[in-house]
Amino acid sequence: MEPIRYGMIGGGQGAFIGGVHRTAAAIAGNWRLVAGALSATPEKAMASGAEIGLPTERAYGSWSEMLEREAALPADRRIEAVAIVTPNHMHAPPAVAAMESGFDVIIDKPLADTLANAQAIADAAVRTGRRIAVTHTYTGYPLVKLARRLVAGGGFGAVRRVMVRYTQDWLSRAADLIDNKQAEWRVDPARSGDAGAFGDIGTHAANLVEFITGERIAAICAELTMLPGRHIDDDGAALFRLSGGGKGTLTASQVCVGDMNDLAIAVYCDEAGLHWRQEEPNTLTIKRRDRPDEVYHAGANRAYVPGDLLAIQRTPGGHPEGYLEAFANIYRAFGERLRGAPAGEDEPGYATMDDALAGMKFLRAALRSSRAGAVWVDI
Amino acid sequence: MEPIRYGMIGGGQGAFIGGVHRTAAAIAGNWRLVAGALSATPEKAMASGAEIGLPTERAYGSWSEMLEREAALPADRRIEAVAIVTPNHMHAPPAVAAMESGFDVIIDKPLADTLANAQAIADAAVRTGRRIAVTHTYTGYPLVKLARRLVAGGGFGAVRRVMVRYTQDWLSRAADLIDNKQAEWRVDPARSGDAGAFGDIGTHAANLVEFITGERIAAICAELTMLPGRHIDDDGAALFRLSGGGKGTLTASQVCVGDMNDLAIAVYCDEAGLHWRQEEPNTLTIKRRDRPDEVYHAGANRAYVPGDLLAIQRTPGGHPEGYLEAFANIYRAFGERLRGAPAGEDEPGYATMDDALAGMKFLRAALRSSRAGAVWVDI
Amino acid sequence: MEPIRYGMIGGGQGAFIGGVHRTAAAIAGNWRLVAGALSATPEKAMASGAEIGLPTERAYGSWSEMLEREAALPADRRIEAVAIVTPNHMHAPPAVAAMESGFDVIIDKPLADTLANAQAIADAAVRTGRRIAVTHTYTGYPLVKLARRLVAGGGFGAVRRVMVRYTQDWLSRAADLIDNKQAEWRVDPARSGDAGAFGDIGTHAANLVEFITGERIAAICAELTMLPGRHIDDDGAALFRLSGGGKGTLTASQVCVGDMNDLAIAVYCDEAGLHWRQEEPNTLTIKRRDRPDEVYHAGANRAYVPGDLLAIQRTPGGHPEGYLEAFANIYRAFGERLRGAPAGEDEPGYATMDDALAGMKFLRAALRSSRAGAVWVDI
Amino acid sequence: MEPIRYGMIGGGQGAFIGGVHRTAAAIAGNWRLVAGALSATPEKAMASGAEIGLPTERAYGSWSEMLEREAALPADRRIEAVAIVTPNHMHAPPAVAAMESGFDVIIDKPLADTLANAQAIADAAVRTGRRIAVTHTYTGYPLVKLARRLVAGGGFGAVRRVMVRYTQDWLSRAADLIDNKQAEWRVDPARSGDAGAFGDIGTHAANLVEFITGERIAAICAELTMLPGRHIDDDGAALFRLSGGGKGTLTASQVCVGDMNDLAIAVYCDEAGLHWRQEEPNTLTIKRRDRPDEVYHAGANRAYVPGDLLAIQRTPGGHPEGYLEAFANIYRAFGERLRGAPAGEDEPGYATMDDALAGMKFLRAALRSSRAGAVWVDI
Repeated sequence: MEPIRYGMIGGGQGAFIGGVHRTAAAIAGNWRLVAGALSATPEKAMASGAEIGLPTERAYGSWSEMLEREAALPADRRIEAVAIVTPNHMHAPPAVAAMESGFDVIIDKPLADTLANAQAIADAAVRTGRRIAVTHTYTGYPLVKLARRLVAGGGFGAVRRVMVRYTQDWLSRAADLIDNKQAEWRVDPARSGDAGAFGDIGTHAANLVEFITGERIAAICAELTMLPGRHIDDDGAALFRLSGGGKGTLTASQVCVGDMNDLAIAVYCDEAGLHWRQEEPNTLTIKRRDRPDEVYHAGANRAYVPGDLLAIQRTPGGHPEGYLEAFANIYRAFGERLRGAPAGEDEPGYATMDDALAGMKFLRAALRSSRAGAVWVDI
Repeated sequence: MEPIRYGMIGGGQGAFIGGVHRTAAAIAGNWRLVAGALSATPEKAMASGAEIGLPTERAYGSWSEMLEREAALPADRRIEAVAIVTPNHMHAPPAVAAMESGFDVIIDKPLADTLANAQAIADAAVRTGRRIAVTHTYTGYPLVKLARRLVAGGGFGAVRRVMVRYTQDWLSRAADLIDNKQAEWRVDPARSGDAGAFGDIGTHAANLVEFITGERIAAICAELTMLPGRHIDDDGAALFRLSGGGKGTLTASQVCVGDMNDLAIAVYCDEAGLHWRQEEPNTLTIKRRDRPDEVYHAGANRAYVPGDLLAIQRTPGGHPEGYLEAFANIYRAFGERLRGAPAGEDEPGYATMDDALAGMKFLRAALRSSRAGAVWVDI
Repeated sequence: MEPIRYGMIGGGQGAFIGGVHRTAAAIAGNWRLVAGALSATPEKAMASGAEIGLPTERAYGSWSEMLEREAALPADRRIEAVAIVTPNHMHAPPAVAAMESGFDVIIDKPLADTLANAQAIADAAVRTGRRIAVTHTYTGYPLVKLARRLVAGGGFGAVRRVMVRYTQDWLSRAADLIDNKQAEWRVDPARSGDAGAFGDIGTHAANLVEFITGERIAAICAELTMLPGRHIDDDGAALFRLSGGGKGTLTASQVCVGDMNDLAIAVYCDEAGLHWRQEEPNTLTIKRRDRPDEVYHAGANRAYVPGDLLAIQRTPGGHPEGYLEAFANIYRAFGERLRGAPAGEDEPGYATMDDALAGMKFLRAALRSSRAGAVWVDI
Repeated sequence: MEPIRYGMIGGGQGAFIGGVHRTAAAIAGNWRLVAGALSATPEKAMASGAEIGLPTERAYGSWSEMLEREAALPADRRIEAVAIVTPNHMHAPPAVAAMESGFDVIIDKPLADTLANAQAIADAAVRTGRRIAVTHTYTGYPLVKLARRLVAGGGFGAVRRVMVRYTQDWLSRAADLIDNKQAEWRVDPARSGDAGAFGDIGTHAANLVEFITGERIAAICAELTMLPGRHIDDDGAALFRLSGGGKGTLTASQVCVGDMNDLAIAVYCDEAGLHWRQEEPNTLTIKRRDRPDEVYHAGANRAYVPGDLLAIQRTPGGHPEGYLEAFANIYRAFGERLRGAPAGEDEPGYATMDDALAGMKFLRAALRSSRAGAVWVDI
C-alpha cells in the first residue's frame, strides 16, 4: 500500500507536537511527509523545512501558499492530506481551506479554539466531503481500545461511576510562563481559546471517558481555578453525569506538583471495575468481586488480546510500547481509511468530527458552569 | 503504667468492629477489658461475654446495668472507660450516660446518627469533664501522621488541590442487604442516620483530608446516589473547598465493584504533591518537580521517621504493620492521655470531639447539598 | 477454649523478638503469658518482668528456676508451654529442659546454633512426647498458605524454577555492629552458630521455598561473603536443586543497602508462575500464558479465599494485616493443636521439628559448600 | 545532517527483529533504508523488498550481490552501512564481507554463533578500520544510561552484589517449537550456536550488568537446563563474580511461565541500591538507608535528568517511551558517530566490539561451566 503523502502546517523549530506527529507518522509506516508550512514566519518556515529534510521547493512560507501550489501539482505527486499542528486559534482557517482545496485533514486536539470555529470545520467537512481525524492520542493505546470493548461493549453491565484525572505540573510555578513557547500560547485566551487546562487536557480526559464508556457526558458542574496573575484556568475539577445515568468526577490540572502526565481512569460497572493509567499504558486492570483482579498486558504474545489489537502492536509482549506508538496507531488507522479500508466494527481508530465536537461542547459547558459559580449545566 | 480497665458496649456475637477494638486494645498493651454489655439482647450479651472470656459477673445484660454496677465497685476495680461500638443510633445514649457515671469514652465513628445527638455527646463531655476519643482509624497510621506534619506543618506551602476517595464493593449487589448484619443497619436510616456510605466511610475520607491538611472543609457540592430499592446513599461524590482556599474532590462509595477498602488521598501543595493509600499503608510518596519522587517507609529502622512515630511501631522496617496496629495506636494514645501523659505538640493521637463534630457537619452539609440537586452548601 | 498458659525464656529489656512473640500471642487470643525468665541476668530478668506486668513471683531470675518452680505449681495454674526467644546458642538447653519438665515448646528459628544441638532438641521431643513449634513467621501469612496449596497441591504442574531472595541492610555498615544488641550476637559465631545472614534469614528463605513447593532443597552450591573485619557471613547466594528436579537461586544478605526486609519469591511451574513479596503480603500474583495475570487479595470478603484461610484473618479485605498477624497465626495454630484440635489436612500451621531440621541441614550444607569454594553439596 | 544510507541483510517476511531495526532507524531519524537483501531465498528477498517499499533495483537476491553492486554505485548514492539481522550463524560471513567492501556494520546480538566467528568479525574490523555497533537494546534506555553513571561512575561506592534476571515464557511448552520461525532457529544449535536462552537473552543480562557496573563478569558457575526433547538450553542460572570483587546471580529462561520479557536488575553498592525493570523502563529506583527511596523518571521535564539524556528522549516526562525508542537511541548514536560526532565521555551509545566479545566469552564460559556440572570457570 502506497503511503499517504502529506504536508504539515505548523510544527517548526521550537514546537513540540509537530515532531511528535512526524515521528508517529514514521512509525505508522503508511504516511510520507513531502511538504510543509512549518511556521507562520516564512524564514522560520524555510529553515524548519530544511532541518527536517524537506526539499526546498516544498518547504513553503505559509500554509495558504502550500495549499495553492500543492493543489497545482500532478495528482500522483501532490499531497493528499495535511496535518495541522498549530495553536488552537490557528486550526480552523487552514483546516477549512485545506478541505476546500481537496485535502483530507488530521488535526491536533482540541478541534478549535471556540465551538463556533469547530463547527465551521465540521461544516466544511460536510460541504467538501473530506475526512478529518482528530488526534486524541490516548485512544490509540491498544489497552484503551480493549477497555472500550469491555465497557462500552456492555459485558460489565451499566456504568455506575467514573473517576478520571489528568494532572501535570509544568505550569505549577509563576515563572513557568516566561520563555516557554509551549506554555505561552496555551495560557493566552487569544490563542488557546477561553479554556486553559480544561481545553488542553480536560478534553482528553473527557474524550477518554466517552471512548471507554461509549456514552456522552450529559451534564457537568465544574469549578475552574488559576494561579494568581493568570487569565485562564490552569486547574479545575467537575462532577458529571453520563448519558446512561452513571456519575463521575473529572480533575484536570497543570499545577499539580509532581505529576508529569498523569491521565488515569477508573470505570465502575455493575459487574466489574476497570483501571488504566497512561504513564503505565501496557497494563489494564479489571477487578471483580468473586475472582482475583485481572491484569491484562498489551503484549502481542498474549492470546487474550484480540487480533486486530495485536496488529497495531509492533513488538511481542514485554517490549513496552508508548505514547509515540499510540500516536502512530491513529495515523495508521486514518491512513488505512484514506486508502479505502473499511472502518472497524466498533470505532474507526481515531477521533472523528463528532467526537471532537462533543469535546468542544463539554468544554463550553465546563466554562459556563464555572463562571456561574459551579452550577450544573446540561451539554 | 497500669492498663486502663475498660468495659465494652456492643460488639457481641456477629459484630465486626467490636472484635477489632478488643484486638487493637490488646496490641496497644495499655488497656484491659474487664467488663462488657455486648448486646442489647441480655442472653446474647451474656453468651458473648463468656465467649471472649469475661467473668460472668461482669458480662452485663445491658449497658445501663453495666454503668450502674461498675460505678458501685471500688475505685481500683471498676472500669475507668467504656468503648462504644454499637450502631450509630445507639452511640449517644450510652456515651452520655457513661460520662455522667464518671467514665471516659472511646467511641466508633461517626460520633452519632444525627448532628443533634452528636452535639448532645459534646455537651455532656463539657458538662462532666470526661474525655472522648473517636476512632477515625486511618489517622492512626504512622505515615498518615507524617503526612500531616509535612502538609499541615506548612513545609510544602499552601494546599492547592486534594483528591480523596474511599471505595468499597460489599454493597454492590442488591442481595448484599440480605442476611448481612454489617450491611443491615448501615443502610437503615433509623439506625445509621440519614446517611449511608457518606456517613460510614465518607466521614473517614473527610477526616483524613482535615487531618493531613490541618484545614476544615468549608463548603461542599455533593451528589449522592443509591442502587434501586435502597433508601440511603450507597455512593456519591463531591466537590469541596477548603478553609485555606484549596479545592478538592471526594468520592465515597460502597458499590464500586472490585474495590475492597480503597481509601486513597493525593494532596497537592505549592511545592510538593503527597500520595497515600490505605491498602498499602507503609509507604508514603512525595513528588516534587526538581527531584526524584521520594518514597517514605514506615519502618522503624529508617532515620527519617521522627522518634515519636518510631515509638508507635512495633517492628523494624519491612515488617508490615496494618489496620489493627493503626487502630491500636489510637487506643494507646488515648490510654496514655488518660494516664496523664501530655498530648503531643501537634495532635493528640486520636480524633477529638471537635474533629468528630466537624465530621458530622460535613455529613449534614453533604446530605443537604445532594437533596437540593447538588448545589453548594457552606459548612 | 481456655488460653494456653505460657512462660517466656528470653525477651527482656532491649530485646526485639520477645515483644513480637508476646504481641503475636495476644493477637492470637488463645495464649496467656503468666511467667517469664526474661534475661540471663537475674536483676534484669526481674525488672523486665515487672515492666511487662508479670506478677513478681512468676518473674524468675533464670529459666531453670522457672521450669522447676512452675512444675511444682498445681496443674491448673502452672505454665503449659514455654516460648524460647533467646539467641541461637541458648535454644537447646532450655528447650530440652522444658520438655523434660513436661512443657511444650514454641521456639524462634533457627532451631539451634548447630545441627547437633538441633538434633538434641529433636531427640528430646521424641523422648518426652512433647510438641514443638518453630516460628518461621512467613508461613503464617494467609497468602503464603494459599501459595502452598496452589503449588505443592500440584495444580500448576511440576516446579521448574524458583527465585527467592531475602535482603536487608541493617548490617551494611561497619559501624552497625557497635552498640546494637540485635546485631551483636547475630554476627558472633559463639552465640549465633557458624552462620550469620544465612542462618538468620537464609533459613527463612529456604523454609519458604520448601513450604510453598512441598519439596526439599536437595543440593546447594553457595558462596557466602562478609564485609572486611567480620567473622561470619553477612551476605551470600546459592544455586540449588529441588528434590523434585526443579532448580533455583537463593540470595540472603544483610548488607544490601536500601532493602529493609525484602523476602520475595517467584515459583515457576509447568502451567503458571507465582509471585509473592513479604513487604506487600496481602497480594499474591499468578501468571499464566493464556490469561491475564491474577492478583489474589488476602481479604476475608473475597470468595476465592478458602474458608480456613478466612478464619485466620481478623478484618475484611482491604484492611491490611501484617507481620504481627502472621506471627499470631502461628501461635494460634499451635495453641489449637495443644488444645486437641486436629491438624489441617495440609500443614499444621507452624513449622515442625522436621521442617526446622531441614533448615539446619540446609544451613550446614551452605556453609560447607562455601568453605570448599562454592561447590555442590548434597543435603 | 544527511541521514546514513543503509542496506539491510535479513529481516524479510516472517522475521521479527528486522522490522524492529527499520522502525528504530525511522524513529532515530538519521538513517535511511535504501537497499536490502532481506532473505536467503531470492524470490522471498524480492517480495520482502517490495513489501517495505524498496525500489526494485535495490532489493537484492543475496547479501553478496548487494555488497558487490552497492559498492559499484557512486559514493553519494551507495549504502554507507549495513544492518545485519540474520540468525546468529549467519552473522559473521556478511559482516566480514561488508566491512571488506567498505561498509560500516550494525548487527544484532549476540555478535556471532561462536566465539571463533565473533573473533573473525573483530579481526575484520581491525583490518578494515570499519566501525561496528551491536544492538544490545536495553542499554539504549535513558534510565539505564543514568544507572551506569550512578554506579559505574563510582558515586555509590563499590559494587557488592548484583541480581539480574531475564525471563520469558514463549518456549515454555513443547509445542512452542512447531511452526514458529522465531523459535525454530533459536533452539537449533546449527543456527543459533551452542547456546539457547543463555545466548539469546542471557547475553543481554550479562551486558546489562557490565554496562551498569562498568566491570566485567570475571568468573561464572552456571547450570543450564532444557525441557525434555530439546537440544540446547532454554533455562539456566548462574552465580558470578565481578572483576571488582562483587558477587551476583543471573537467571535467563524462556520457559518461566507468565513472564513476557522480564529483564530486571538490582545492583547493591556500599552506599545505595539501584533497581530497574525493562517492562517499566521509565522509572529507576535508588534506595539508601537514611533517606526515602528515590524514583527517577525518564521524563524530559525533570531537571535531574542530564542534558544529553534529555536529548535522546522525544517527549516530555509522563509520555512513556519504550523499547523501540531505546532501540532508536542505538541507531541514532551510531549514526552520529559515523557522521563524525565525538563519542560521549562515558560510553559511545551502543555496544562496541569489545562489549560484544565480552558477551561471547561470558557465554562460552557459561556453557563450559554447565557441561562440567556447574563448576566455576574463569572468563
